[in-house]
Amino acid sequence: MKFEVLHTFSAARAGILKFGDIEVATPVFMPVATNATVKAVPHLFLKEMGYELILSNTFHLMLRPGEDVIKRFGGLHRFMGWEGAILTDSGGFQVFSISGRSITDEGVLFKSPIDGSKILLTPERVMRFQNVLGSNIAMVLDECTKPYIPYEEAKEAVERTLKWSMECKKVHTREDQALFGIVQGALYEELRKLSVFKTLEIGFDGYAIGGLSVGERFDETLRILDVVLPLLPFEAPRYFMGLGTPELILEAVERGVDMFDCVYPTRVGRHGVAMTWKGKLNMRSAAYKEDKNPIDERCGCYTCRNFSRAYIHHLITRKEVTGMTLLTIHNLWFMKEFMQEMRESILKGMFSRFKEEVLSSWCKPTVEVM
Amino acid sequence: MKFEVLHTFSAARAGILKFGDIEVATPVFMPVATNATVKAVPHLFLKEMGYELILSNTFHLMLRPGEDVIKRFGGLHRFMGWEGAILTDSGGFQVFSISGRSITDEGVLFKSPIDGSKILLTPERVMRFQNVLGSNIAMVLDECTKPYIPYEEAKEAVERTLKWSMECKKVHTREDQALFGIVQGALYEELRKLSVFKTLEIGFDGYAIGGLSVGERFDETLRILDVVLPLLPFEAPRYFMGLGTPELILEAVERGVDMFDCVYPTRVGRHGVAMTWKGKLNMRSAAYKEDKNPIDERCGCYTCRNFSRAYIHHLITRKEVTGMTLLTIHNLWFMKEFMQEMRESILKGMFSRFKEEVLSSWCKPTVEVM
Repeated sequence: MKFEVLHTFSAARAGILKFGDIEVATPVFMPVATNATVKAVPHLFLKEMGYELILSNTFHLMLRPGEDVIKRFGGLHRFMGWEGAILTDSGGFQVFSISGRSITDEGVLFKSPIDGSKILLTPERVMRFQNVLGSNIAMVLDECTKPYIPYEEAKEAVERTLKWSMECKKVHTREDQALFGIVQGALYEELRKLSVFKTLEIGFDGYAIGGLSVGERFDETLRILDVVLPLLPFEAPRYFMGLGTPELILEAVERGVDMFDCVYPTRVGRHGVAMTWKGKLNMRSAAYKEDKNPIDERCGCYTCRNFSRAYIHHLITRKEVTGMTLLTIHNLWFMKEFMQEMRESILKGMFSRFKEEVLSSWCKPTVEVM
Repeated sequence: MKFEVLHTFSAARAGILKFGDIEVATPVFMPVATNATVKAVPHLFLKEMGYELILSNTFHLMLRPGEDVIKRFGGLHRFMGWEGAILTDSGGFQVFSISGRSITDEGVLFKSPIDGSKILLTPERVMRFQNVLGSNIAMVLDECTKPYIPYEEAKEAVERTLKWSMECKKVHTREDQALFGIVQGALYEELRKLSVFKTLEIGFDGYAIGGLSVGERFDETLRILDVVLPLLPFEAPRYFMGLGTPELILEAVERGVDMFDCVYPTRVGRHGVAMTWKGKLNMRSAAYKEDKNPIDERCGCYTCRNFSRAYIHHLITRKEVTGMTLLTIHNLWFMKEFMQEMRESILKGMFSRFKEEVLSSWCKPTVEVM
């Protein structure tokens, strides 16, 4: 992996990530392919839209299809027939959501949701599996905490994440795979700073901000971003884990974040919500029953080039899978275009105006479907 | 619509159906697009596979999106954004499966499955709606009976179907829309003959065989085909409604059928069954968990060109929608290729050998999933 910042607008950055011949313009949004597929969208459409970097989930792939199958295929790219680049998370986020898990310095012990067998997720195991996956970017195992927890608990999680980060780095062997560290510390500025300094001491190819966008008030998210981002090295990519709504991405990019992922655009798409430059549309609404217009007249996606709102409304209300597919395609196209135009605005020194324009549309009262 | 038989092999025919610029080689299999979409497959893939004629269901479209919406779009093609040709059934088959319906000479009275309101389906209403749909081929309203019913009951259904057929023809106005008659008569040869003669007297652009493949033993299906087909005019296309399994299509084509439709290939695909030249594969089977081969090495479909059996197994067992999509694409490609090779065999005078080869594969004990 190579990363270059091409241009800045205040703290916002327009850059490029390279994985061999694959070039990914940043800021970038990565669609989520949990089970080695972006839900409801054949790879063909992702390629056509220009997506070259997707995220897949170590935790899910470890359970199924499992290490043996991936190994047999020589990695995740070949298993899933994906020619672009892949970032894999460490499984930390998923494991910490499971009830009945127990955490020690050694790792996380949890019951397999498949057969109830006990699985110990250690930094070594996570790294070894990501090495087998052969993702272009691997993540360290971290302890992702809830936002409003006592200081001591947050401190312990930071220290454990640092310990695990060191172990991950030690075990990480593939030279063709970048390794990112993860900053934790809940909403405590002091802990976030500690986490950054110690993570930088270990040294990684990129730095992620974890434990945000997990239920905290958004002004608190921004307060922590304002503390963390100025401390991160200019040369390395910065990745905000789990953020995917345009209005929040704008704030994060303004503060210097380069990478994002979230199930949001794909999930709401499957539930009938279309993202547009004018805000969200709930395509289940009877208002679209006879609407001959495409979802968005400005949009060049496969869905908008070929189909009307009325047809999408029909498919979604009839629970047709193609409705999910067409809306997911539309939303991913929107995200792609949104990121591109945002990048353009950084390159042209117009980011502030761009941000203002988007927020004036997106901050209108809108449908919420999750 | 124009139809031409180009070549015959005994009773089997290789022909061509023309709808303006659209040419459809026969024998043809029509994928079913019940709710104005072939389930789980964006149109893009159908086009790439060369499908130019699909079937959609009048009954479902009448309920939703309903006549007003279709009218507003100027027809079904534009509503669903489909550039190929469309055959619409008359709704008869669906209505007769609804419990609590009552049949009179006037039409069928049934309760809407949506809001419980009473709907009277008359020949006039069915034709008027198909005129609004603007399908390239419309079907008359028929009374589709179960196979093993008393003679008197079957006779009444034949007579009613004839009465309705006349009314349909009278109401049918669009010159750009072909109208097909439907032969009924359950398993009574005498009634089938009567039905053919009277339907021919009314005169249609093509002739369908209804009330078969509805639960009867297959030797009985063939016995009726043997009675009906020799009585149909050589020049008109013959359509066996609701048949979609290769081994049965072979028998029907051998007897002179040109057109087929069935949910079978798409439905079993969504449930994990892959159709191949060597028979059916249940992709849910753990046997495919690590299998690096494509579903079928001979196959040129999007799925087989890009993905392994192991990946398909993974998607289907993980209940990923893309698994349904990829298997439906594969099965429709198989059906397309199957029909093409069958047609080639007719053109080359090799149909008998082709039939024998296919049956020797397809008659092996296989997985049944419906």
